[in-house]
Amino acid sequence: MHGEIITIGNELTSGRTVDLDSCYAARRLTAAGLRVTRIVSVGDDYELVSKVLKKAVERSSFVIVTGGLGSTEDDMTTAIVSKSLKRPLCLDQQLLEKIKTYAKARKIGITPSLEKMAWLPEGARMLSPDGRACGFSLVEREVRLYFLPGVPDQMRYLMDEVVVPEILSLYKGIPVTGQRVLKLYGLSEPEIVEIFKEYQGKGGDVDFGFYPHFPENHITITLKGAEELKVKKELDRVEKEVRQLLGAYIFATGNRTMEEMVGLFLIEKGLTLSVAESCTGGLIGHRLTSVPGSSGYFQGGVVVYSNRSKVDLLHVQQETLDRYGAVSDETAREMARGVRDRMKTDLGLAVTGIAGPEGGSEEKPVGTVHIGLATDKQIFLRKYRFWGDRHKVKLNGTMMALDWIRRFLNGDPFLPGV
Amino acid sequence: MHGEIITIGNELTSGRTVDLDSCYAARRLTAAGLRVTRIVSVGDDYELVSKVLKKAVERSSFVIVTGGLGSTEDDMTTAIVSKSLKRPLCLDQQLLEKIKTYAKARKIGITPSLEKMAWLPEGARMLSPDGRACGFSLVEREVRLYFLPGVPDQMRYLMDEVVVPEILSLYKGIPVTGQRVLKLYGLSEPEIVEIFKEYQGKGGDVDFGFYPHFPENHITITLKGAEELKVKKELDRVEKEVRQLLGAYIFATGNRTMEEMVGLFLIEKGLTLSVAESCTGGLIGHRLTSVPGSSGYFQGGVVVYSNRSKVDLLHVQQETLDRYGAVSDETAREMARGVRDRMKTDLGLAVTGIAGPEGGSEEKPVGTVHIGLATDKQIFLRKYRFWGDRHKVKLNGTMMALDWIRRFLNGDPFLPGV
Repeated sequence: MHGEIITIGNELTSGRTVDLDSCYAARRLTAAGLRVTRIVSVGDDYELVSKVLKKAVERSSFVIVTGGLGSTEDDMTTAIVSKSLKRPLCLDQQLLEKIKTYAKARKIGITPSLEKMAWLPEGARMLSPDGRACGFSLVEREVRLYFLPGVPDQMRYLMDEVVVPEILSLYKGIPVTGQRVLKLYGLSEPEIVEIFKEYQGKGGDVDFGFYPHFPENHITITLKGAEELKVKKELDRVEKEVRQLLGAYIFATGNRTMEEMVGLFLIEKGLTLSVAESCTGGLIGHRLTSVPGSSGYFQGGVVVYSNRSKVDLLHVQQETLDRYGAVSDETAREMARGVRDRMKTDLGLAVTGIAGPEGGSEEKPVGTVHIGLATDKQIFLRKYRFWGDRHKVKLNGTMMALDWIRRFLNGDPFLPGV
Repeated sequence: MHGEIITIGNELTSGRTVDLDSCYAARRLTAAGLRVTRIVSVGDDYELVSKVLKKAVERSSFVIVTGGLGSTEDDMTTAIVSKSLKRPLCLDQQLLEKIKTYAKARKIGITPSLEKMAWLPEGARMLSPDGRACGFSLVEREVRLYFLPGVPDQMRYLMDEVVVPEILSLYKGIPVTGQRVLKLYGLSEPEIVEIFKEYQGKGGDVDFGFYPHFPENHITITLKGAEELKVKKELDRVEKEVRQLLGAYIFATGNRTMEEMVGLFLIEKGLTLSVAESCTGGLIGHRLTSVPGSSGYFQGGVVVYSNRSKVDLLHVQQETLDRYGAVSDETAREMARGVRDRMKTDLGLAVTGIAGPEGGSEEKPVGTVHIGLATDKQIFLRKYRFWGDRHKVKLNGTMMALDWIRRFLNGDPFLPGV
């Protein structure tokens, strides 16, 4: 059972906006065992949209179309559908009422541009049962067409609540596709490929995919079967084998993030954490606090961007800064100890480095990052050297620091430094 | 002069990866006055890639293809091109040497999978002058085809350094397209549309685009002309008129970010800043420090996620917390004053709120955020109420706080609270 995704908007073909909608739709459909053969993005162009839509109807079982359903003048998907599929626009009174109710709840006045959204092509069925989002479906020559708004929230809501369940209910006997994602940190793609070369022959009827997601690398394990339980069991077996190959480089599976894993381990051990950030500028705190419930283990931290703040807030000694510099094991040590003491936490994590583009030297080039971790017993210190621009150094510094916590709590050794 | 972009990879059609490459390519081509008619993503499928490639050659002047050029087994673009365009693979010795040199510099061993990348279809020309990235070009029936790696860094480098300049040099007489992007914060899309309705009639031959980028809204002004200077002048005129309509809601133009603008204004006034973050968890610090040179005005800050840390690090009074709660004007006041005093900066910015999903109450629902700004003369305080999940509340709280600095330094009033 295969389909296509069409996303509409000049913002896409002009590169103003990243096409997150098609990605989400593709992910949901794939997860449900359906196959997406192609994703096509076209601008707000009557002719072209019409052509692409008709082509898709010819060769697919279902078509998901997003974009151009909003209230602005360049939102013309409904008009295009009406014209190209020869279905005149009709006012959907029920939809109009729902739009009014929704606008009222959000304290937005009902405008002519909002009213426009209540006109649908003949035969169209409104998708949202509660008016929470606009969008409609049509059946054209036995092909199911879904038109969704481009606004990510609404689009996602309709995909999950309406579109995927409906397609699944229409097409029986879809083989079960199982997929598992393993997330790695600390190995390059070529290194992973080499490790896998030996293994892949033994894997049987399994597909492996390798995807760099800087600074992570993801491996997907995909297999099909008739029964969900068998597929799950087989996935478990393969995952176990892959874990034997890659060990502690695997930090999470599925949608789990590094910061979620760190949070889970901290809860499990009943420990609290504080962070002292220099070059990462607050990114570690931001990532830790992006996890709901993080206030249970994350006490907070300091962003000590200047030398003075390192002295004032963390009691780093001026002499240490003068003698070894802000980017050194010695400063990382005092930062980690300082934040642990000040915040009265079990663990104190510190990162100090040179994110660039300025500030590097021959001895301490851009990308040099020192990490320190103070526990009740000792302080761990290590120096790393990351490639890339300011943004990448911040990402890698943050990831490495979080990985330290994960590895420390798991009893795994830290990644080797330079 | 129009072309197509084709991106290849199962990771795209299965929704594992967001297609950032096509977005970047489309942006660059559009900015150069070229038109992208469609973007097509297909999986690693011989038949389909071959079909889509041939179709694109039939109807376009140029085609950009990304993905499938790496070292893993599912990277088969080169083989597909070879077969579908009937061009046998040949070993490019020069390219092999460059790959070896590059691998050596990065301390990656030369593996068979890396060597594979040196085999190109007959007639192909290697794109990277210095071996920094793989990728090749071909001319097929007068259509220029560019094959680029999917790795964002390499792909972007080749687009900027080779592909766009080459296409521009081949096709003369391209009319100049001018585009300007205005970024707004604090108005909803329907509100912007209504404000614009009156204006648009007077605009002449100008295209306006409206794009939500949560929590920002972007407006594009696009116009064409024969001469660059005239187009620029006309853009200036339209921008000026739009600014009269929208005033201080416009916080930046082009690629500028809110944090860059805040930095520029701080430098201009010669002022320093520190931040005390509660619900934003470090995101304000992260955004401020994502700007190169931010150490010149950003001293750092504290992430005071717990009540105890608010007392310990910022000297917020326990009595204030007990009486008014952590999410209150009173606590925001002491946080702003506290961080300004502790960090010895000109401005002290504080944010405290409830990001959710837990922690809300009838009186203080999820999304309640208090902002405080301490200056040498006074302390400003205001309460806001944001919609959405944890992530959105953090984004809006951060944006509003940065917007306060921008507005304060410009002498504009803060956005109204609740």
